[in-house]
Parts: sequence; C-alpha cells; structure tokens
Amino acid sequence: MQDSLTIRKANRSDLPDIIQLVRELAVYEKAPEEVWVTLEDYEDGFESVFDALVAEWNGRIVGMALYYLTFSTWKGKMLHLEDFIVTESHRGKGIGKQLFDEVISQARRLNTKLMRWQVLDWNEPAIAFYNKYDVAFDTDWWNVKMLFTGPPAQS
Amino acid sequence: MQDSLTIRKANRSDLPDIIQLVRELAVYEKAPEEVWVTLEDYEDGFESVFDALVAEWNGRIVGMALYYLTFSTWKGKMLHLEDFIVTESHRGKGIGKQLFDEVISQARRLNTKLMRWQVLDWNEPAIAFYNKYDVAFDTDWWNVKMLFTGPPAQS
Repeated sequence: MQDSLTIRKANRSDLPDIIQLVRELAVYEKAPEEVWVTLEDYEDGFESVFDALVAEWNGRIVGMALYYLTFSTWKGKMLHLEDFIVTESHRGKGIGKQLFDEVISQARRLNTKLMRWQVLDWNEPAIAFYNKYDVAFDTDWWNVKMLFTGPPAQS
Repeated sequence: MQDSLTIRKANRSDLPDIIQLVRELAVYEKAPEEVWVTLEDYEDGFESVFDALVAEWNGRIVGMALYYLTFSTWKGKMLHLEDFIVTESHRGKGIGKQLFDEVISQARRLNTKLMRWQVLDWNEPAIAFYNKYDVAFDTDWWNVKMLFTGPPAQS
C-alpha cells in the first residue's frame, strides 16, 4: 500500500490529537509543566478564536498548524501561526513543508498582508526550515506575559 | 478648569487618531518607513479582528491600546496587546497606567487566561513600566514574518 498524506482543516473531534501534539512540542521546548490547558479550553476557542490544519499520514494525525487572525498596526490584517508541529516519528517525509505551504495558502486566501510566528533562538532545525522561505527574523523583541490563572491542581 | 481623563472603547471614527499614534510610536521604535497600513485596512479589521481602547485628555485622544483575542496552546484564551501608546506630550500624568489597567480589566472580562505583548529589548522606560506589574519576560523567542505585500508607491 502506498503511503497517503492529507492536509485538511481540523474538526472539533481532532482537538484531543492536537493537544497531544502540543504536549509533545512542549517537551521538546523544555517546558512540559507549562501546559495547563484543558480540552474544554480548546473547545471554547476552536473556530471562535483559532483554527487549525491537520496532517494525516495513512489516516492518522501526525502534524498540525494552529493559527488565528490578528492585526499588525504597521501592515494590517495578519495570520499568526501559534504552533506548527510534526510528530517526531514522522519527520523527514516532507510533511512539515506541505503543512506549512498550506498555512501560507490559507493566509493568502484570508487576504492577510503578512504571516507572523515565533521560533526559539536555539531551535536550529526550525530556523533552518524557515530560512528556506523569504522570511525576516526580528531578534530584538521580548515577550511579556501576565497570567490570570495558576497551574492545575496535581491529581 | 480641571483636567479630565476618560478611558473608553474606541469607535470607528477614532481610527484616524489611532493611526496617528501608531505613526508616532513607529518613529520612536526607529521604523517609520515600516508603516504601510491605510485607513481602509484599519476599517477592515476594526471589531472584526481587533478592538481598541482610547484615552481622552480634555476631550482629545492622547493614548490608545489596540488588542485582539488569541489562543495560547499551553494556557488557552489570551488577550494580545498589539500596541500601547501615550503621546509624548502627555506622558508623566499617569495616563499610561490607567489605560493599561483598563486593558487588564478587559482581559479579565473576556475570561482570558493570560495577557501577552511584546517590548523592544532596548526600551528601558517600557520595561520599567511593565516591571511594576506581576509579569514574566521571555527573551529567547525570535519573531519571524513573511510578507504578502510591498511598501506603498511613493507619492
């Protein structure tokens, strides 16, 4: 049987698989304890705040791109790519490139002026991947966050 | 006559004043040539993608905070503060603090889990201002952007 890859818009029923990928990426980013989110939080935000694309390899979700519309005060309507993940076991098959290209297509369909995302400064494979595209890196901004919630109680 | 300060939600008719403040901040951030946006872009995004608060001093708009709802894959629904500006001639009157506090109130009213924004690493007055609050700085992320548009033709 030939392997099959499908890139498609996520459905509500894909949210548990999406959260699983988020947890995997958080481990890679050395911050798994920072993931406090629940399925209910995803159900609350899905299609009201964010959308996602998923990559299915032989019918199984192995990648996802989660994004939302935002606004650049300098450029106008913008697509922000919040997370972009291919599960470790399925890297090297070109899945990331097809998924990322579909995010770009989606940004263009939504008539955005630009696409923006973030990358950790030590994540060399990701930086090398993005550098294959016509992109610009801004290295002099810090993120600032104020939390209104605490970590979940330990079970 | 006593000075009066009003913090209120922006109306569509405030957009030209908001753009003026954005241009002023872009000069301070050493990138005025990066502002390509038009009033039409703001009208397109207002209330469909972003909202704003304005600060009126004696009836004149002297500050604004532009924000939108986003989604943290680790925490859930989030308010992103894209720009926060008080015009230079009106600093030192506590306007920024009142405006910023109202953004925090708005984030809580919208049931977000956190508020996020960015600051330039050399902008010491802004960093000092944010440090008066219970915030965390992330200094190891780079912004990446891909543009789908070019600078406007010179007139």
